[in-house]
Amino acid sequence: MPHGEMTTSRLEAFSDGVIAIIVTIMVLELRAPAQPTWSALLKIAPIFLSYGLSFLVVAIMWVNHHHLIHAVHQVTARLLWTNLNLLFWMSLTPFVTDFLGKNHREPVAVALYGFDLALCGCAFYLLRTELVRQDRDTQLAGHHASIQRKNVGSIVLYFSSVPLAYVSIYASFFIFALIPAMYFLPENKLALGDRNEQRSKE
Amino acid sequence: MPHGEMTTSRLEAFSDGVIAIIVTIMVLELRAPAQPTWSALLKIAPIFLSYGLSFLVVAIMWVNHHHLIHAVHQVTARLLWTNLNLLFWMSLTPFVTDFLGKNHREPVAVALYGFDLALCGCAFYLLRTELVRQDRDTQLAGHHASIQRKNVGSIVLYFSSVPLAYVSIYASFFIFALIPAMYFLPENKLALGDRNEQRSKE
Amino acid sequence: MPHGEMTTSRLEAFSDGVIAIIVTIMVLELRAPAQPTWSALLKIAPIFLSYGLSFLVVAIMWVNHHHLIHAVHQVTARLLWTNLNLLFWMSLTPFVTDFLGKNHREPVAVALYGFDLALCGCAFYLLRTELVRQDRDTQLAGHHASIQRKNVGSIVLYFSSVPLAYVSIYASFFIFALIPAMYFLPENKLALGDRNEQRSKE
Amino acid sequence: MPHGEMTTSRLEAFSDGVIAIIVTIMVLELRAPAQPTWSALLKIAPIFLSYGLSFLVVAIMWVNHHHLIHAVHQVTARLLWTNLNLLFWMSLTPFVTDFLGKNHREPVAVALYGFDLALCGCAFYLLRTELVRQDRDTQLAGHHASIQRKNVGSIVLYFSSVPLAYVSIYASFFIFALIPAMYFLPENKLALGDRNEQRSKE
Repeated sequence: MPHGEMTTSRLEAFSDGVIAIIVTIMVLELRAPAQPTWSALLKIAPIFLSYGLSFLVVAIMWVNHHHLIHAVHQVTARLLWTNLNLLFWMSLTPFVTDFLGKNHREPVAVALYGFDLALCGCAFYLLRTELVRQDRDTQLAGHHASIQRKNVGSIVLYFSSVPLAYVSIYASFFIFALIPAMYFLPENKLALGDRNEQRSKE
Repeated sequence: MPHGEMTTSRLEAFSDGVIAIIVTIMVLELRAPAQPTWSALLKIAPIFLSYGLSFLVVAIMWVNHHHLIHAVHQVTARLLWTNLNLLFWMSLTPFVTDFLGKNHREPVAVALYGFDLALCGCAFYLLRTELVRQDRDTQLAGHHASIQRKNVGSIVLYFSSVPLAYVSIYASFFIFALIPAMYFLPENKLALGDRNEQRSKE
Repeated sequence: MPHGEMTTSRLEAFSDGVIAIIVTIMVLELRAPAQPTWSALLKIAPIFLSYGLSFLVVAIMWVNHHHLIHAVHQVTARLLWTNLNLLFWMSLTPFVTDFLGKNHREPVAVALYGFDLALCGCAFYLLRTELVRQDRDTQLAGHHASIQRKNVGSIVLYFSSVPLAYVSIYASFFIFALIPAMYFLPENKLALGDRNEQRSKE
Repeated sequence: MPHGEMTTSRLEAFSDGVIAIIVTIMVLELRAPAQPTWSALLKIAPIFLSYGLSFLVVAIMWVNHHHLIHAVHQVTARLLWTNLNLLFWMSLTPFVTDFLGKNHREPVAVALYGFDLALCGCAFYLLRTELVRQDRDTQLAGHHASIQRKNVGSIVLYFSSVPLAYVSIYASFFIFALIPAMYFLPENKLALGDRNEQRSKE
């Protein structure tokens, strides 16, 4: 096993650790209601839904991050810091989720949620750009370019959800639901690309 | 080491991380009583007991999850998402545990606790169904079918604890104690099945 | 790599994860004082000291747990559950630490702290007993017996700190300081035993 | 794979786990403001900035720790405890960050923040001293000595930020910003040193 591979696995393990904690501590914001009634539970439904949405979004990021880091050949200082930049914006998800859950009808909370996810998208873009710069394998160039295009699409959508929240919060919520749906379909294709890449290595 | 195996170990590492956090953050709900007396400690006994029960339930799920993922040959997108679905319902355990600990005599808290565990059971059923679909090894078919039957049994019991909580919370608590007990015995059998499976690989 | 070894490393990884979380979430109990003055900080000194003590105690348990699991040959169901039993009592450390930090002059908090650590000691004893039962290597029998004797010593001391807290809390604190000190010296010996064991495997 | 290597990877995994938790639980201090307005969000900007600074500082420590542990040949008891000493002071970062975020204009909070980071620097110095003591490879002696000099520099700066906070908190903040900047440049050099070291092993 070459040196680069091992460091890749450590980078992945650390990132996985941080992402696992991010996804799990969000549940700490789900506080038990004071009254033990179904109507009291119903009142915290928005907090529950914003948790569910963020769980899904962070899970999608984890799957994408996993595929991305898997393709890394050498962990340079630049790659390390681009990755830490991504983890920083992802680590703000529990905060914006909590704020959204408590103020789901307020444009400011909806806008902030979209803004943080837009920044996560930008951080992903930078990380993949760094990966592409490293990787001169022309065979995968098309694969990376198609993912970057989709990523740019979701960044544009997330950024547009910020001003849109002041027009209609429902338009922003539609975007928040649309992007995860967008990412579900090409997962098979991704896995396929990954397998092909693997085959070419063997 | 083939590609599939490695991804299995990453999936397991991420799941283990999330489960380790779930099981440990529940202790944060155990807040020190305001008065330093044994009677004040006695008052938080229900919170302590609900923590102990959930620790046991999540530990059993971890052991079963470990055996299940160990039998996976290839991490498909479908398997990844069925697994994340399970982690989502498991991640709600700290919330329903806290609610139960604070309202252990209220049917609503007992019912919600049983409901979340029933959904965890369903998520396990889906995950194993996905595994069986992948795995055409007829030798293990009987092994999987027997675990699925037991799983269906615990799902039915957990779902029945929901309406039962309105008749008698003690009936529901009996179910909560019965299912962990049910899972203790066949552990040896499971380990045996696992070892046989291993032997057939070598 | 044989099957047993791999499962040992997974058991170790899960336990390490839980212990890392236990040791780190305790710091969440260290809340910033309301007034930004040195005298306000001085008032939370007992909370800080109880955190420091528990960090040390859990770290010692982690080191011992690491050496213990390293010697395991086969992860049986019984070993798995004896290990989960240990993790359960260890997971209560943040709770008893918080209670002690807030009520460091109250016998009840001192007694509860000693009681939980005594139960952790018992859980360690059970875990090593299980390991010895597995391991018929007579060469290491003396090594295990000497660790068990020391473990029994610390269990007796921790249990005696419970009634002693009602005579003098300082006597109990002396025990809490004595046991970590006791564990510092033979660490070299342990590492040596571990290395010998390793050598005999090669 | 020799025994020493494996234990190094376990030590790294445990440390990585603790550092991942430290870096992520700090976000729990970022509480959603009561009013859903941009001005209420602006009021928590200092808490956000102190979180960002600590994320960066802990990330730099993680990168350095990774390179340091990677160079370890044998995990002795002394190395284990020097490492746990470092983790202890690092684990106080969430506490001093929270205190700074809530009292960013108070000298006491600025001084305490600088003091904890100075102690982390000292713990790093001790850990590398232990590593150098082990490692008689004269080729790397110059490499270690240059890192130690830089480390002493940052310790002196952090300690000087303590009294300086009482003269001007801005002087201390300048130091807090200067040190991370200092660590960004030689990262490439470090990675290079690491690669050379690797090459000499192969």
